[in-house]
Amino acid sequence: MKVRGQAVRTIEVVEEDVSVRVIDQTMLPYEFTWHTLNTSQAVADAIATMKVRGAPLIGVTGAYGVALACNEDPTDEAIERACAALIATRPTAVNLSWAINRVKEHVLAVPQMARATAAWQFANIMVTEDVTRNHTIGKHGLPLLQELLQRKSEKGLIKTLNVMTHCNAGWLATVDWGTALAPIFLAHDSGMHIHVWVSETRPRNQGLLTQWELREHGVPCTMLADNTAGHLMQRGMVDCVIVGADRVSPSGDVANKIGTYLKALSAKDNDIPFFVAAPSSTIDWKWERFDGIEIEERRGDEVRKIRGLHDGEIWGEVAEVALLDDGQPVANPAFDVTPNRLISKIITERGVAEVAGAKTFAGTFASMLDKPRQPAHALD
Amino acid sequence: MKVRGQAVRTIEVVEEDVSVRVIDQTMLPYEFTWHTLNTSQAVADAIATMKVRGAPLIGVTGAYGVALACNEDPTDEAIERACAALIATRPTAVNLSWAINRVKEHVLAVPQMARATAAWQFANIMVTEDVTRNHTIGKHGLPLLQELLQRKSEKGLIKTLNVMTHCNAGWLATVDWGTALAPIFLAHDSGMHIHVWVSETRPRNQGLLTQWELREHGVPCTMLADNTAGHLMQRGMVDCVIVGADRVSPSGDVANKIGTYLKALSAKDNDIPFFVAAPSSTIDWKWERFDGIEIEERRGDEVRKIRGLHDGEIWGEVAEVALLDDGQPVANPAFDVTPNRLISKIITERGVAEVAGAKTFAGTFASMLDKPRQPAHALD
Repeated sequence: MKVRGQAVRTIEVVEEDVSVRVIDQTMLPYEFTWHTLNTSQAVADAIATMKVRGAPLIGVTGAYGVALACNEDPTDEAIERACAALIATRPTAVNLSWAINRVKEHVLAVPQMARATAAWQFANIMVTEDVTRNHTIGKHGLPLLQELLQRKSEKGLIKTLNVMTHCNAGWLATVDWGTALAPIFLAHDSGMHIHVWVSETRPRNQGLLTQWELREHGVPCTMLADNTAGHLMQRGMVDCVIVGADRVSPSGDVANKIGTYLKALSAKDNDIPFFVAAPSSTIDWKWERFDGIEIEERRGDEVRKIRGLHDGEIWGEVAEVALLDDGQPVANPAFDVTPNRLISKIITERGVAEVAGAKTFAGTFASMLDKPRQPAHALD
Repeated sequence: MKVRGQAVRTIEVVEEDVSVRVIDQTMLPYEFTWHTLNTSQAVADAIATMKVRGAPLIGVTGAYGVALACNEDPTDEAIERACAALIATRPTAVNLSWAINRVKEHVLAVPQMARATAAWQFANIMVTEDVTRNHTIGKHGLPLLQELLQRKSEKGLIKTLNVMTHCNAGWLATVDWGTALAPIFLAHDSGMHIHVWVSETRPRNQGLLTQWELREHGVPCTMLADNTAGHLMQRGMVDCVIVGADRVSPSGDVANKIGTYLKALSAKDNDIPFFVAAPSSTIDWKWERFDGIEIEERRGDEVRKIRGLHDGEIWGEVAEVALLDDGQPVANPAFDVTPNRLISKIITERGVAEVAGAKTFAGTFASMLDKPRQPAHALD
């Protein structure tokens, strides 16, 4: 999508077969800078330090890491070692190991001399796949937004669609388009009047990334504290909610960024459609329901500390302040589970699944998918 | 309650008929400092800059402001002028004008010579009233907590009661005890094993005040991002929720700090009792239901900026960082409305009202109260 008027992707090849560059997301929304990656170690570091984040994006970045490793030493042992190091950077990100293993399998099947070229080609293909998949999610989601706006305009209401989102499931989490934001970008580009309520998403404030990317692309948006979501829904200021997903169960339960469940409860209570947009690879066929799945507990400092610009200077010094000192106990589960009864539809690149009930959903999905076993994604 | 082992109130007479001191709440939880007030102008400044906050507390502080004004000039005109200036500091805080008008009415009825003494005596009485009222709320709430723990222990579960709260309805918002926290302090003091989940309460992070006062008094507590409340309830980690109230309708609707509604939805969805603790003066008899009441929209900078300790030093420099620059649109409604169907019981100093349904509640309340018209409170 656009940054300062230019079309940009989160990862770009700088020199074919030699180097790629990624947006340094640790500096967003305060600074927009590129970070060049020309060794597999540099890729591992960029993933570990979260310069790149978002399941689809770290998968693709990891694939280039394998390609760079093939440049450095195309022997089986060296490639295995590099892949293991890359996977170890985010051990819970299933999508990272899935992507790396895909490339590894591909390159180990060709002669050593041809491996680097094969890996670069494969990584380039994964980039294209990601962009196409997200764009298709957008195309499947767009009619849902158009229908809601149509209904609103039939009632003589203001012709702007107000969509709420949570966390960042935008293009920054992917190569381009994003998942939850893909239908929104398409709607905006098609001329629809659309406005996005951006939930801050404490503790890591990924809402700041969402606000940044929407604003850079020209989509009107407003930031809110997570607490505010219910009130806006009660007052008729939200027409639908769209979020991404970390994992989707075959019955339609959704594990996503902490706080998603509260928004879904409020949407249900106010009769507002609640959509989940995610690639079909996000379906985790191992669990029928998600009631008891393990939820990652992250560092307490994510709650205790917060970053911003000191003295409020624009593009000024990025500083961290402590809200609580180190001795204070905090809870920091990264995700929660939204049960299927609260979800209206799940938008994938294969089509839209109705979540009228658990069985219906599983049926819709099974018929929609030809590959019932794909790895789960871990967004960030 | 206790601070560093000593019993402390938010406002204390330093020298009878001469000066009072208040805790400077703008520096909490980072610095615990007293601020002396010996002129009515100093009182007005302390309220305007939110050194004191919380409806009951600013009411009492305002009363001392009138007493100080009587010291300075006991003529009718001077008192009227001082009262107007005090009320103007927080125009939406109904409780402030109510308290000031009570003192004013009282002193204008006595000869000029006797006014200062009368005002000081009256303000001292208001302090005692506030403490007694909150302590009584605590005594009415305590059996509810004991019953929950009893039931838990009958099931063979861990003998700690986990209570979640929102915002700060603790002793810092009153003279002592607090409203929502009064039953918790009493439970703790009686030896009950009680643990409090403290919700951060963005955007103003009043949860930091709650965590500070619980910790100083020795009550175990854990901070969480507001988004986390639903997940903890889903996982059986919350036995009940207790919050304060800004206004309560005769049917049992509750206007309270933004985000209360989301917690109430989640409590209902997980079959967890949701209690509201508030003085009976919080009932606003003007509105049967609160669906359409006006909600105060506060400065966007409360969302855009956040304060903490720079570099994480304990008792270090208090600094503000900007999360968003000034040009970014934000929504910042200060309160939301929790409909009566989500509330289990309302705890007042007059007793506990069941909110089984709107009519039952109004009936319980009407029979509980002898003065059906009291001003609404605005907590902060």
